[in-house]
Amino acid sequence: MKSAFFVLAVLSCGLCWGQATEDCKPSALNIPEAKYPCVYPDGRAMFRVNAPNAQTVRVQVGRGFDMTKGPDGIWSATTTPLVEGFHYYGLQIDGATVADPSTMTFFGSGWQNSGIEIPAPDAEFYLPKDAPRGRVSEQWYYSKVTAKWRRCFVYTPPDYDKNSKAKYPVLYLLHGWGEDETGWYTQGHVDFIMDNLIAAKKAKPMIIVMDNLNAVKPGESASLFAARGLVPAPGAAPAAARGGVGMPVQGTPPAVGAQPGRGAAPAGRGLGGFNLSAFTNMMFTDLIPMVERTYRALPGPENRAMAGLSMGGMQTFTTGLNNLDKFAYLGGFSGSCGGRGASFDPKATCGGAFAEAAAFNKKVKVLFLGIGQAEGQGTKDFSDALTKAGIKNVYFESPKTAHEWLTWRRCLYDFAPRLFK
Amino acid sequence: MKSAFFVLAVLSCGLCWGQATEDCKPSALNIPEAKYPCVYPDGRAMFRVNAPNAQTVRVQVGRGFDMTKGPDGIWSATTTPLVEGFHYYGLQIDGATVADPSTMTFFGSGWQNSGIEIPAPDAEFYLPKDAPRGRVSEQWYYSKVTAKWRRCFVYTPPDYDKNSKAKYPVLYLLHGWGEDETGWYTQGHVDFIMDNLIAAKKAKPMIIVMDNLNAVKPGESASLFAARGLVPAPGAAPAAARGGVGMPVQGTPPAVGAQPGRGAAPAGRGLGGFNLSAFTNMMFTDLIPMVERTYRALPGPENRAMAGLSMGGMQTFTTGLNNLDKFAYLGGFSGSCGGRGASFDPKATCGGAFAEAAAFNKKVKVLFLGIGQAEGQGTKDFSDALTKAGIKNVYFESPKTAHEWLTWRRCLYDFAPRLFK
Repeated sequence: MKSAFFVLAVLSCGLCWGQATEDCKPSALNIPEAKYPCVYPDGRAMFRVNAPNAQTVRVQVGRGFDMTKGPDGIWSATTTPLVEGFHYYGLQIDGATVADPSTMTFFGSGWQNSGIEIPAPDAEFYLPKDAPRGRVSEQWYYSKVTAKWRRCFVYTPPDYDKNSKAKYPVLYLLHGWGEDETGWYTQGHVDFIMDNLIAAKKAKPMIIVMDNLNAVKPGESASLFAARGLVPAPGAAPAAARGGVGMPVQGTPPAVGAQPGRGAAPAGRGLGGFNLSAFTNMMFTDLIPMVERTYRALPGPENRAMAGLSMGGMQTFTTGLNNLDKFAYLGGFSGSCGGRGASFDPKATCGGAFAEAAAFNKKVKVLFLGIGQAEGQGTKDFSDALTKAGIKNVYFESPKTAHEWLTWRRCLYDFAPRLFK
Repeated sequence: MKSAFFVLAVLSCGLCWGQATEDCKPSALNIPEAKYPCVYPDGRAMFRVNAPNAQTVRVQVGRGFDMTKGPDGIWSATTTPLVEGFHYYGLQIDGATVADPSTMTFFGSGWQNSGIEIPAPDAEFYLPKDAPRGRVSEQWYYSKVTAKWRRCFVYTPPDYDKNSKAKYPVLYLLHGWGEDETGWYTQGHVDFIMDNLIAAKKAKPMIIVMDNLNAVKPGESASLFAARGLVPAPGAAPAAARGGVGMPVQGTPPAVGAQPGRGAAPAGRGLGGFNLSAFTNMMFTDLIPMVERTYRALPGPENRAMAGLSMGGMQTFTTGLNNLDKFAYLGGFSGSCGGRGASFDPKATCGGAFAEAAAFNKKVKVLFLGIGQAEGQGTKDFSDALTKAGIKNVYFESPKTAHEWLTWRRCLYDFAPRLFK
């Protein structure tokens, strides 16, 4: 069988397959036994899909690449070198945007994308080692603010179950636009990163709460979710029975009978409506009390951190800067608040939160701004402007990476050791 | 917008859309804001997909249904009434088998299928109520038998974290062919079912361990995963870096550097190789010791149960019947061991495990056989033959349902209250 493949590969190679050789390694995100997509040492990726009757097939990974049909009905394309890290992608088959059946799927841009991982040289920091293992748990809770059941995931550190009296500080960690509460432990490897940091005594054991950014109050339809053209949605009707985050419960918590919202698990929890102030309200009314009631969490701002990526960074700065009595640590990974560089005005930028540097620095032990090198200069300019205004802050830049999960894994790896010291 | 849709619907209705009216409710498994697929009160489902340039589009849900193209490039089909419960499904777009971008995805048949839920009248039993909530945790561990990291999910009951001295019995619960360790908590709603049973004092609080059926020893390639034609896999090469369950670790646990196997989370853990005896070996060498070391588990056969669905039932009977000193409770949900009805021979069937009824009944407190009514007579015949041979057993039949998750949710709901009494 194997030799037959190579004969075929050699015969067809010039036509469509690029170099179908053994140096193209299956992506770590493929379903078991799927050889494609595969990644060459230089970061090029080869995609293949079986679509014998299609007229045009493209793969959209960052930009689009036309695929070419082979004699066996299999379409393939080899990309230009891709940036290191995790990339969502999709296929377009005769105009239909779909996931590649060869990979696992990842919730991003509001649907179940395919994913490909371009290996990074420093990958060890987010891979499992023989360190004591923490646990990520699914935690459901009822939100009075949104009148729905919500789901978050909670990382507890390796010694949490053994030291049954010990209490821990808490980091609230958010995903980005179009993602959901599964992002940090699936795409982000939060548990491996923390297990490794804790084993190396680089970070203090902490609880990490990964919630869903989406929150609207009952009756609100403040959706930032623009139709992507994927799903036929005539009239842009607001998600009928499944809109918003969580199960649409009528009345009080015990209400049952509506669909569960978790068969559709990450689903019902995903997009549906953003409202920065509703999230803040939900966080203080529902989430933090639930966490501090359910887990052995240390109280007080010095034991609470908040961080998020992209839109989660915007949420973090919105919530955090307005509640400095609640959090002593804030992190924005490829996202924070508006007003950067030249336009920076300490009295106006971010609602004037930076107007009084001495008071700010006293309350905020770490203000962290992380970014991928390929994302541009804005965050560095913001950091410099803050520094100039006397606001202590940490600027972190992930080498070579773009607006994607390798940047954010590295941000967490740099940020977490700075917390709760 | 809405009125425009209805005008369009009325105009096009006779052509392709069946009754595009408000009595078609979005499936609970849709991504947020997706109106389709939707389900009519009589169980018919309407599917829609945007594929403007496709020539043929079909939806495959149990059987195939041709879709029809509307003037807007959107294809649609309305099925005949579907059986209540959870169904995997996929689309065929010009010969490509892909998931529907409108739904969440679920690991079945070795890839990320779409899912649709046809509501059942008794759905309350698997929906969240205002009962105290247990937790489902992701648990990684290193397997000496397979020489790989493995992942399981562990349900701990509501009082587990509060009663820090209490110990609990353990149910080992397996998925079916082509599925993985995410199945029971995602498709199966194990936590909601157990929370509800425990709150009603119908079941004893217990730990439930949901592992991955796939297990092969290093070098083994005993794969039952026949290519489905989805993934181009020339030479049927054994999954390269990602084969089998877990991360391909060379040598001992600390080894790192290979890809994580969890970005590909459920992926790397999915299909790749089955070997019933390797799984049994792994279970006793790695899994049970890890569970009893990590969780507050009660020891001994009277505190251990094992159950599984379909192929997981076959694994349960293979492991359990050969190790009756380890388990006092066994459950097969739409799957058990061979030799049914007329061909039943207590001295030969299932390796002769039923040869000595009195001794068997003394060891096995519950032998449970569950099935969906639409699955046929075989399991009932098997149960009757066992009874005739003096083997005490419980037969449970889920009304109307097929070989799918509603059957298995109901099996668990009936089985769990019988345990550890």
